[in-house]
Amino acid sequence: MTTMVGALAIRASLAEPLGCVTDLPPLRDAALPGWTDLVFGGHDISMLRLCKKAHSLVGAGVLPAPIVEAVAGELDQIERHLRPAPAGRNQAETIQQTVADLRAFREQHDLERVVVVNVSSTEPLIVAHPAHESLAALDAALPVADVLPASSLYAYAAFTAGCSFVDFTPSTGARLPALAELARRVGTPFAGSDGKTGETLLKSVLAPMFAMRNLRVRSWSGLNLLGGGDGANLAQPEANAAKVASKQRVLKETLGYEPEGQTRIDYVPDIGDLKTAWDLITFSGFLGSRMRLEFTWHGCDSALAAPLVLDLARLTAGAHEQGTAGPMPQLAFFFKDPIGEVSHSLADQWHDLVDWVTGWTDDPS
Amino acid sequence: MTTMVGALAIRASLAEPLGCVTDLPPLRDAALPGWTDLVFGGHDISMLRLCKKAHSLVGAGVLPAPIVEAVAGELDQIERHLRPAPAGRNQAETIQQTVADLRAFREQHDLERVVVVNVSSTEPLIVAHPAHESLAALDAALPVADVLPASSLYAYAAFTAGCSFVDFTPSTGARLPALAELARRVGTPFAGSDGKTGETLLKSVLAPMFAMRNLRVRSWSGLNLLGGGDGANLAQPEANAAKVASKQRVLKETLGYEPEGQTRIDYVPDIGDLKTAWDLITFSGFLGSRMRLEFTWHGCDSALAAPLVLDLARLTAGAHEQGTAGPMPQLAFFFKDPIGEVSHSLADQWHDLVDWVTGWTDDPS
Amino acid sequence: MTTMVGALAIRASLAEPLGCVTDLPPLRDAALPGWTDLVFGGHDISMLRLCKKAHSLVGAGVLPAPIVEAVAGELDQIERHLRPAPAGRNQAETIQQTVADLRAFREQHDLERVVVVNVSSTEPLIVAHPAHESLAALDAALPVADVLPASSLYAYAAFTAGCSFVDFTPSTGARLPALAELARRVGTPFAGSDGKTGETLLKSVLAPMFAMRNLRVRSWSGLNLLGGGDGANLAQPEANAAKVASKQRVLKETLGYEPEGQTRIDYVPDIGDLKTAWDLITFSGFLGSRMRLEFTWHGCDSALAAPLVLDLARLTAGAHEQGTAGPMPQLAFFFKDPIGEVSHSLADQWHDLVDWVTGWTDDPS
Amino acid sequence: MTTMVGALAIRASLAEPLGCVTDLPPLRDAALPGWTDLVFGGHDISMLRLCKKAHSLVGAGVLPAPIVEAVAGELDQIERHLRPAPAGRNQAETIQQTVADLRAFREQHDLERVVVVNVSSTEPLIVAHPAHESLAALDAALPVADVLPASSLYAYAAFTAGCSFVDFTPSTGARLPALAELARRVGTPFAGSDGKTGETLLKSVLAPMFAMRNLRVRSWSGLNLLGGGDGANLAQPEANAAKVASKQRVLKETLGYEPEGQTRIDYVPDIGDLKTAWDLITFSGFLGSRMRLEFTWHGCDSALAAPLVLDLARLTAGAHEQGTAGPMPQLAFFFKDPIGEVSHSLADQWHDLVDWVTGWTDDPS
Repeated sequence: MTTMVGALAIRASLAEPLGCVTDLPPLRDAALPGWTDLVFGGHDISMLRLCKKAHSLVGAGVLPAPIVEAVAGELDQIERHLRPAPAGRNQAETIQQTVADLRAFREQHDLERVVVVNVSSTEPLIVAHPAHESLAALDAALPVADVLPASSLYAYAAFTAGCSFVDFTPSTGARLPALAELARRVGTPFAGSDGKTGETLLKSVLAPMFAMRNLRVRSWSGLNLLGGGDGANLAQPEANAAKVASKQRVLKETLGYEPEGQTRIDYVPDIGDLKTAWDLITFSGFLGSRMRLEFTWHGCDSALAAPLVLDLARLTAGAHEQGTAGPMPQLAFFFKDPIGEVSHSLADQWHDLVDWVTGWTDDPS
Repeated sequence: MTTMVGALAIRASLAEPLGCVTDLPPLRDAALPGWTDLVFGGHDISMLRLCKKAHSLVGAGVLPAPIVEAVAGELDQIERHLRPAPAGRNQAETIQQTVADLRAFREQHDLERVVVVNVSSTEPLIVAHPAHESLAALDAALPVADVLPASSLYAYAAFTAGCSFVDFTPSTGARLPALAELARRVGTPFAGSDGKTGETLLKSVLAPMFAMRNLRVRSWSGLNLLGGGDGANLAQPEANAAKVASKQRVLKETLGYEPEGQTRIDYVPDIGDLKTAWDLITFSGFLGSRMRLEFTWHGCDSALAAPLVLDLARLTAGAHEQGTAGPMPQLAFFFKDPIGEVSHSLADQWHDLVDWVTGWTDDPS
Repeated sequence: MTTMVGALAIRASLAEPLGCVTDLPPLRDAALPGWTDLVFGGHDISMLRLCKKAHSLVGAGVLPAPIVEAVAGELDQIERHLRPAPAGRNQAETIQQTVADLRAFREQHDLERVVVVNVSSTEPLIVAHPAHESLAALDAALPVADVLPASSLYAYAAFTAGCSFVDFTPSTGARLPALAELARRVGTPFAGSDGKTGETLLKSVLAPMFAMRNLRVRSWSGLNLLGGGDGANLAQPEANAAKVASKQRVLKETLGYEPEGQTRIDYVPDIGDLKTAWDLITFSGFLGSRMRLEFTWHGCDSALAAPLVLDLARLTAGAHEQGTAGPMPQLAFFFKDPIGEVSHSLADQWHDLVDWVTGWTDDPS
Repeated sequence: MTTMVGALAIRASLAEPLGCVTDLPPLRDAALPGWTDLVFGGHDISMLRLCKKAHSLVGAGVLPAPIVEAVAGELDQIERHLRPAPAGRNQAETIQQTVADLRAFREQHDLERVVVVNVSSTEPLIVAHPAHESLAALDAALPVADVLPASSLYAYAAFTAGCSFVDFTPSTGARLPALAELARRVGTPFAGSDGKTGETLLKSVLAPMFAMRNLRVRSWSGLNLLGGGDGANLAQPEANAAKVASKQRVLKETLGYEPEGQTRIDYVPDIGDLKTAWDLITFSGFLGSRMRLEFTWHGCDSALAAPLVLDLARLTAGAHEQGTAGPMPQLAFFFKDPIGEVSHSLADQWHDLVDWVTGWTDDPS
């Protein structure tokens, strides 16, 4: 919602693209689709009208009233391209219907390419299944058994329709060998997982700081208080477990060991969209001296996520145009739980991103 | 004090070199003098015996009692190489006496090279003087006028004696054109200024994070509470001004603009050596949304500084051996106010340091 | 401004009297003027129209837009009773003109009594003058010398016109022996000084907690960041000194000793009306163990002050009706720097307030 | 452990009774047993020698080394009065053996009275049982069924032996109708539950502050990080639930409603005895303005608890001497979950305590 309102506002020069990484000098002139090239559509479980939703976000202090009013007409147009998620008699059929939706959307708007972005609620961690291991096994299973979570059905459908796929949540999405195989075969790229917008963003600069200074992190404890719909979902134990696992990876991979302490997520409706994270880090240094760092992050969750969704859509479309297929570890900068064996230091990830994108050519064919 | 006790403890395998950057994998095997190659001496204004000082630091919780007891004998030996600062009839004479002290120390211990490290109290900001601009002008002025602060007398003396120089404080030290000219002429390197151990260390990773994410920092306010002798000195308005200027540079150079807000330093004797810094950062993102970050850092000042002093001594000696002369911007990683036009991002500084040092050869002649 | 909008909104049942102490059960049925009995007027230095000011506070997030729109008509009516502060040829004449304004306001609205509340900017601490010591000396000086600050001119005029006076700022106001003498002579009460709305409110419950538990407070350091007009004024060293002195009293009087540490006030325009205070308290307990408490208070300054101004107007009018004259130490609950030898514990102050007010009779004559 | 070392140190004038409430002026001269009148004994599950335990607490920074050395001899003497908890063939027999232990201890030391204090680990919440409802039913059940948790067996034994009982934990202890009946019948007083030493202590002054200012607390979320043995136990879900229930009571009873938010307890061994609690409180005031308070408490758990255990032992012995029997709501000042319908405001509790104790006479018979 915030993503669409923001894109319309930026396009109409009503707002600066603050928070958009692709607007920074080293990326600004890269071979990417422009703001005006973007067209929005989607599957939405909510039947609430877009304009109503936008107005409720004004009341919550997330969206500025004048901007919502200015883009209301365009929101109504996008509305017409939203539809409920299809439900076939089996998973193979659900995929086919989604593929049909994607193709229809591309043809209707005469688009060069489509990027499917998963921004739905976090799914529980899945149970491993043999059908996940190869495309042949998966194709055999889909007509007869429910072997994929919803996010992976979308990844399958996206690749089949020749669309790229971005997982902005900790859900499974394209992270199965069978789906990576499919993406490579059809020549579409994918990225994920789980947008890095708050506590983990800080971890990705603070953990390297401790490492570079040879300070031993003894414990790292955190409490995340969330109020929005995301918070309500993450208060469910299964979704919570998936999210927490995604948040812990950066410490172990940056420090080389796992400090004590846990990351908690609690649902506090009153907080609304203004997420609060408090972390306490205890560490030791020279001659065993004991020290502490505490931080509190009060971040507007959707305002942090929305510009990254726009960045990822542009970058993934650009990569697709350059001929990239399969997973894109170069987009680790954006994710809590990035694909592949990559550095978890934000600064390293930034350099990897810039090096990659600035090497693209305007006419890759 | 903590530096010497720590070096003796590390050498005797009584403590790990935690906090020492030169012990990290990419630097551990570099062409640097070893822990056992270090010999300590110095000019000290305090007449208190080293062992007494070490015991008072045990009482303050800074040094572990068993370690101080184990190295007490060696501390007494170092004591014999300490002497009061010389005071000639004019600054030229004071320099000559210091040069003589340095040469005597080098010969007595049969040392390959000596690194002079300034860890004395912060001096007030100096007033510009024409004699600072060239070595010729300076040499003409020194016998007849007091044109240099104490820290710069030491830099002059160090270079004259063929020693390298490190300024771990925000004082002037070698940062005058005349002294840089001298260092280059005699072929000795120097580094500075002001060891980066707390609030500024955090700024050097957090400011790049905001920049890389295109988030606009609106204000950055900080309060530093210090209890040790350093705190008492920094409570003096002149020293405070010098320190605060040193602390502000990172924001402007990393962000490209100066946010609102100030950095304060207050003296609270009860805090002792456990420095507390609290910072509030307000920033805005997508569609103008307003957000905040707060942190509190409880760091043991001397435990953070001491290992960096050892690192700088080893790295500066190594650079001297490699034939480096003049300022060393590659050591920006260690300083609040680094020499030269360098990145203020800690991650960039780390890469610059590692690239530089891993290129050194064991036999540079 | 917030006070008037709020009173109009409460009267029209558009808002609950949240933050108003006189709405709490033990005081709700006391012999006080009702919300609908209040009429507003004043001297204002700003020539900006009230409605414009109210709208600018909507933009800053302090006032809700629907409420400001609903009361806009009434604000325009109040506007007609605002006038610029008079300026006579000497202080005696300025007082006379203010007295005339007060009497005219009372007659025009047929009011039983008028409460003058000082909510203007903090004045610098004044220099003692012999004319402050007695009413006779003051009356002799006023026609020939400027011996009173503006806040005290208003107190003098209020008492002369038979009005009570409340000082909501740390300025001198009625706190001079000569003015207390005048208040007692004419039979009007007064209250002050400096509304307790944030950091000091917390001190008035936390300091008693440490005292009741026999924990020794070693240091109490604070930084207050303010953005509004009040912040700009308090950034001036003179006003800052007055404010800080007002803020420190509670610790010494509650603990019986003065801990180390200072209270700082810094001006950060970006913060706007949302004041942030950070305090660090170090304390020791059983067997000398060292402990710490930190807090951060993000309070909307005008939203915290406005209901107290309404409470004080109602309580002072009520006290006046009961025949109270001179200083009112029973209102210490509201002030950082209360009049008289009173407890600085908020709980004690609350009991004193409730005991006093619940003893009032509806028909005191 | 800290309690005993501290009492011995205070008695020997090696330490001030900091943290001891009974040393404050209004209670200092009350009719209480003196520091030198106290004799320690107990049942202990740990077979580690007291002196060893005390030395391990020195290593952890909880106890000062010189004090532990000075009282080592006396600790050895106390050691001789410690014994393992008895275990009869049924609960009636276990009680009888404990009664015998208590009587033997009282006779051996020729004591006027004995106070049994429960400082063992938190038990899970118990399941209600009909035998809890009356002494007759309980006496019938004890020989044939295990109907009481360990803490209640001690309360039963204490009362039977004519000893008073204090529950410093959230365990059941004397809080059963059958046990209150027994205490009243034999004329012994009891107190509880759960010493108020950190987060809840702060709640008991902050919640009344919000209430007295008519500010609406919207959410109150907390995370408690504990490292000591207490932390390991409270990481167990059952004990955690008991503790959290005890911690929540103050908000509901002080505010009159339950704000959103939860209290979490996590075990972080590295923190050791230095408990850290972080709380975020969101509240609203005048015209619905939204505000926040955050605090972080770094308290040494045993240093906060130990002086209160000494206070409670002295006060309970004093109350017993005055002829008090049954529950003592006047000791609510000390507890998270006090007995009876009492104020949860620390200031009110303090006044109740002082009023009660200062009314005692030296010769109550």
